[in-house]
Amino acid sequence: MNNTQVLLKRRPMGAPVAEDFEAVTTTITGPQDGEALIKNEYISMDAGFRNWMDEGAGDAVLPAMALGQPVMGLTVGRVEESRHPTLRKGDLVMGRLAWEQYSLAGDDFLVVLDNQDNDTPWHYHLGILGDTGMSAYFGLTDIGRPQAGETVVISAAAGAVGYVAGQIARLMGAERVVGLTSSDAKGERLKTELGYDDFINYRKPDLNQQFLNACPKGIDVYFDNVGGPLLETVLNHVNVGARIPFCGAVADYNTQHPQGPSNLFQIVTNSVRLQGFMTHLQLERYPEARGQLTAWMKKGQIKSITHEYDGVAQCGHAFADLFSG
Amino acid sequence: MNNTQVLLKRRPMGAPVAEDFEAVTTTITGPQDGEALIKNEYISMDAGFRNWMDEGAGDAVLPAMALGQPVMGLTVGRVEESRHPTLRKGDLVMGRLAWEQYSLAGDDFLVVLDNQDNDTPWHYHLGILGDTGMSAYFGLTDIGRPQAGETVVISAAAGAVGYVAGQIARLMGAERVVGLTSSDAKGERLKTELGYDDFINYRKPDLNQQFLNACPKGIDVYFDNVGGPLLETVLNHVNVGARIPFCGAVADYNTQHPQGPSNLFQIVTNSVRLQGFMTHLQLERYPEARGQLTAWMKKGQIKSITHEYDGVAQCGHAFADLFSG
Repeated sequence: MNNTQVLLKRRPMGAPVAEDFEAVTTTITGPQDGEALIKNEYISMDAGFRNWMDEGAGDAVLPAMALGQPVMGLTVGRVEESRHPTLRKGDLVMGRLAWEQYSLAGDDFLVVLDNQDNDTPWHYHLGILGDTGMSAYFGLTDIGRPQAGETVVISAAAGAVGYVAGQIARLMGAERVVGLTSSDAKGERLKTELGYDDFINYRKPDLNQQFLNACPKGIDVYFDNVGGPLLETVLNHVNVGARIPFCGAVADYNTQHPQGPSNLFQIVTNSVRLQGFMTHLQLERYPEARGQLTAWMKKGQIKSITHEYDGVAQCGHAFADLFSG
Repeated sequence: MNNTQVLLKRRPMGAPVAEDFEAVTTTITGPQDGEALIKNEYISMDAGFRNWMDEGAGDAVLPAMALGQPVMGLTVGRVEESRHPTLRKGDLVMGRLAWEQYSLAGDDFLVVLDNQDNDTPWHYHLGILGDTGMSAYFGLTDIGRPQAGETVVISAAAGAVGYVAGQIARLMGAERVVGLTSSDAKGERLKTELGYDDFINYRKPDLNQQFLNACPKGIDVYFDNVGGPLLETVLNHVNVGARIPFCGAVADYNTQHPQGPSNLFQIVTNSVRLQGFMTHLQLERYPEARGQLTAWMKKGQIKSITHEYDGVAQCGHAFADLFSG
C-alpha cells in the first residue's frame, strides 16, 4: 500500500522553512505482531516539536528526531487493522505518531478517544480538546489560578494554546485578560472574537509603556508559551505572588544561543512561582478537562478556532508557517 | 549621645569592598513622638541587601539605599527609651534598621522577640532563628519538600542560609544532600560537621561531571541562593518534577549585566517548579518555624554556626568579606 510521508530532510537553522522537510511516497506493509495500522485523519502542527529537531536534542522526555525519517507529531486517526494488544479495529486514537498518511503503532504514546459524542469534530482532539486545550486548562487550573480582580497576560495569545487560555482565564474569574501578539490585526481579533480586554503588540516600540497601559494593576498571572526576552520584560511588571505557568519556550527553539532573563531576581523579590508542565504527564486528568471544555463550548462560553491545510504533503509548509507569525 | 554609624559612601561596582562604606561618629537625640530608641546589640551581614545598594534598585519590596546614609540591615537590639505606640522599654527586637549603634525606629519593620528562653543567645535571632533560618525552613517546607529517596542540592551551602537548609533537608528525609561551595576545605567541613553526603566545588573544572558523580540519581530539589550560571548547570541535571526554592540570586547582585540561564526550556520539559519567596511576607509563621528549629537544636539534630566581628565600625569589612568567598 502506498504511504505519503514527510521526512526531516535537514535540521532547521533557526526558524523552520518548508525546505527542511520533504514529502515522499513509500510503501507500507503490516501490521506486525504487536502493532496496529492507523490511518491518520488529522495531523497537528505544534511549535513545541521544533525542540526535538535539533542535533542531540534528546532529553528525558523524547529522543531527538532522526534525519531522513518521518517527522514526529500528534495525529488523530482510525485503527484500520490491529495485531496490537489493546487497540481494536475501528478505534479512534490520538497519538504521538508522525507526519504520514498511515502509521504503524506499537508502544507509541496513544490514547483511545471516546467519541460517543458525535457533535465533536475529530480534529478537536488535536486542538481545544487535545494537548493544546489541555495545556491551557492544566496551566491555569493547576498553576495560574486567576482570582477575582487579577490581571492575566497570555503570550502567543493568538496561538493554539493561547487563544484557549485567554478564554479560560476569563471564565475562571480574572478581571483583566491581556494578550501578547505580533500584530495589531491579531490583537483586534483577540478583543472582538475572544473576549480579551486588551493586547500588546510586542513588535512595536515602548514595550514597557504598553505593559503599563494594558496592565495598570500589574500582572498576577503570566501564561507563558514563549520564554525569551518577553519573559524578562514581564518580570519587570509582576505583582507579589504572581504565578507563571510555563508552557513553552518558542523563543528558544529557533535560537542557537538562547539568553535567559537577566532579572530572575524579580522572581525572588516578588515571590513568583514559575512552573513548567507537560500535559502528557497528566493523562489521567484528560477526561475531566475535556468534560469541562466541552461543557463550556456547548454553552457557547468558549470557542474553537482552527486553521486547516489539506494533504499530508503540506505538513512542511504548514509547520514553517507557524514560525513566520 | 554619640552614635557610631556606617554609611554607604559610594555604590559598589560589582562585589562590595570595605572602601564602599565609611564609619562615622554622629550624635543622636530622641526619640520623637512615635519613635523608639533602640540599642543595636547585633547586626547581621546579609548578602541579599547588596541588591538595594545599586542606583535605582528600588522595587516593590524596598527603596534603593541612599548615598551618605547608614546602610540598611537587620539588627537585634533593646528598646532603651520609647515614645512608640507598641514598643516598650526593655523589649528585645529584631528589625530592619541600619548599621549603627543606636537606631530611632518608627514604622520600620520590627518584630518583638519572646526571649523567655534564656538558653537562646540573642544573635540566633539574626541567624538560625532569624531570617536566614526562616529562609531555609520556609523554602524547604513550602516549596522544596524533599521526599524519601530524593537528592537535594544546596547552593552557597556553607553560607548563612545554606548550612541550615542542608541540615533541614536531611531531617525532612532526603536521601542525599549535596552542597555547592567554593573550596574543598569548606566542602569537607560540610561533610564532617553538617552531615552533607557530598559537595561540589564550583570553582573546579568538569562541573557537569562533578554533578553526575555527586548526584547519580539526578536532582529533585535545588535550594538556590545564587542564581546565575550555576542555575543553568543545575537545570541540566534536574529530574522530572524537581522543585527549586529560589531564595537569592547573589550571582546577579554584583553583575552589571546578569545573564539568565539559557536553558529555561528544561523547566518546561521537566515540569520544574521554580519559586521565589521572601520570609518577611510570612511573619505569622515565624513562631512555628522558630519552635521547630529550637526543638531540633535542643535534641542536637541541628547546629548553629556563626562568625562574629566586634564593633559597629567593622560592618563594611565584614560585608565585603561575604563576597570574597
